[in-house]
Amino acid sequence: MSAMSVREAPSSQQPASRPLPRDILVVGSVALDDVETPFGRVESALGGSATYFATAASFYTPVKLVAVVGTDFPQEHVDFLRGRQVDVTGLEVVEGGRTFRWRGRYEYDMNTAHTLDTQLNVFAEFVPKLPETYRRPGLLFLANIDPELQLGVLEQVERPDLVALDTMNFWISSKRDALAEVMRRVDVVLINEAEARQFADTYSLPAAARAILELGPRAVIVKKGEYGASMFTDGNHLGESYFFVPAYPLEVVRDPTGAGDTFAGGFLGALAHEPVLDSAAFRRAIVHGSVIASFTVEDFSVNRLRTLTRAEIERRFAEFQAFTRF
Amino acid sequence: MSAMSVREAPSSQQPASRPLPRDILVVGSVALDDVETPFGRVESALGGSATYFATAASFYTPVKLVAVVGTDFPQEHVDFLRGRQVDVTGLEVVEGGRTFRWRGRYEYDMNTAHTLDTQLNVFAEFVPKLPETYRRPGLLFLANIDPELQLGVLEQVERPDLVALDTMNFWISSKRDALAEVMRRVDVVLINEAEARQFADTYSLPAAARAILELGPRAVIVKKGEYGASMFTDGNHLGESYFFVPAYPLEVVRDPTGAGDTFAGGFLGALAHEPVLDSAAFRRAIVHGSVIASFTVEDFSVNRLRTLTRAEIERRFAEFQAFTRF
Repeated sequence: MSAMSVREAPSSQQPASRPLPRDILVVGSVALDDVETPFGRVESALGGSATYFATAASFYTPVKLVAVVGTDFPQEHVDFLRGRQVDVTGLEVVEGGRTFRWRGRYEYDMNTAHTLDTQLNVFAEFVPKLPETYRRPGLLFLANIDPELQLGVLEQVERPDLVALDTMNFWISSKRDALAEVMRRVDVVLINEAEARQFADTYSLPAAARAILELGPRAVIVKKGEYGASMFTDGNHLGESYFFVPAYPLEVVRDPTGAGDTFAGGFLGALAHEPVLDSAAFRRAIVHGSVIASFTVEDFSVNRLRTLTRAEIERRFAEFQAFTRF
Repeated sequence: MSAMSVREAPSSQQPASRPLPRDILVVGSVALDDVETPFGRVESALGGSATYFATAASFYTPVKLVAVVGTDFPQEHVDFLRGRQVDVTGLEVVEGGRTFRWRGRYEYDMNTAHTLDTQLNVFAEFVPKLPETYRRPGLLFLANIDPELQLGVLEQVERPDLVALDTMNFWISSKRDALAEVMRRVDVVLINEAEARQFADTYSLPAAARAILELGPRAVIVKKGEYGASMFTDGNHLGESYFFVPAYPLEVVRDPTGAGDTFAGGFLGALAHEPVLDSAAFRRAIVHGSVIASFTVEDFSVNRLRTLTRAEIERRFAEFQAFTRF
């Protein structure tokens, strides 16, 4: 008998308990980024995992955000989020503090961010505290933060219909046990391919995904940047348990920052409308994630999303269908 | 008016002139390979682009092979090819000569072959001479050889229903003009992603593919190893002009040698049965290429193909459909 068959069925396999479209809670970072790519540069641009996620998900459903900034954080960014139906009640402002700042550069191939400087500032002491109105979210996204803080968030919510997490190499090497514990308690793990290999200590992505699935999640989504994304789910037949979506064939990628977080935003945003959170719903949602991420990287920061329309999303979704039809 | 609209329509857009299934002519190398991977090693194993291609394509239709070997080439390999309905009339044996030998090693990530030794031997003086019975092939595959020799082959055939070529970085840097000239005269260019970027001098694959399409081919198929393959065709809508197929999610890749050539073999093999060589036929054929390549890399040399069955091919083809359905 496998580990999968004895563990408790995750809540997402139960009938959905929250009204549609579900709202989404995201806990992560809000930052000011200096980014340089072969196509240009921006300074003190709106960034951070929670920002990218919330902006993307807000095309689908109301989002509640938990993060921290300093008093240097421009009001216009707060206004932008509010204008996108993002609830910022949970955006803590530390009096006299400085906002998390990241400075990075992408080389010609755009696949790897080279971090030039990281100033955690107020983010270093961040302990997510959920406002009362946040404690019963339809869906929950634990963006890339310390897995111990992710566990702390789980303690503060009534079990949502679905919980997804993202993480990064730093936590895999420094807090592996805590990360494994969060993975045991979520429905979907989003992870990039290098991190999946690192976590499972194997080059084989199918083997790495299986190792994560055995902890408990229903699905592991492996992000591959310009090569798209694949999903592994538990199942007897590979045709049912494996799904792949290519990246959109963009001629120019101007800034890859935020691709993974907006992918997650499109993914959970689309799931917010799905009555049943099954594998077919996951597949459609992954394509939505790919669509939103493909728009995000067309410009710096969240700038492309400022003008993006639902019609553009739907059009690109249809293109993705055509790309893989045979 | 674009370059595409004024050039003569390629023959493959005309009604097919050859009976179905079309036979296939391949011109390339037959070699003896020493290969080492993290999963084992083989010495003097059957290899070479024409060998891999012909073995793969022979699952679909009769194949005629043109290549050269020395008198050290084991008779059992000739018998193997004959046993697979491969016509070896065009396999030249140089008396007293030594067969082309390649020695390579793959590291843990399996994406890059490290060439340890290349002995061209009789292949250095290879000038393809087509037997009389070879001059009217249904389909023609110009495997990776000197583009000047590829041009020489085109001079010896009555225009087939479709011609495809493969190439490599060495020819892109040393014989770029001749290569561009062959590209102008074929229907399909198969090329790996690094080579496409090198040929067009751009990181953008869509831009690189467009540069090649502008030379004349109807389709550019970009091979991405473990990330699958994409096809770019001329068209006004990206949904019609772009196609993507993932790689099969193998847990273990034992030896990647020959993946590209067997991909081409499955691709042309499947096209051999298509009455109309249109974009839909190309899509199905690319999936067949991916299927055959995925079996090839499960074992060293052509060993997996020795036992492969049509039923296994069909089963995996159906899995590919399921992988991308949403």
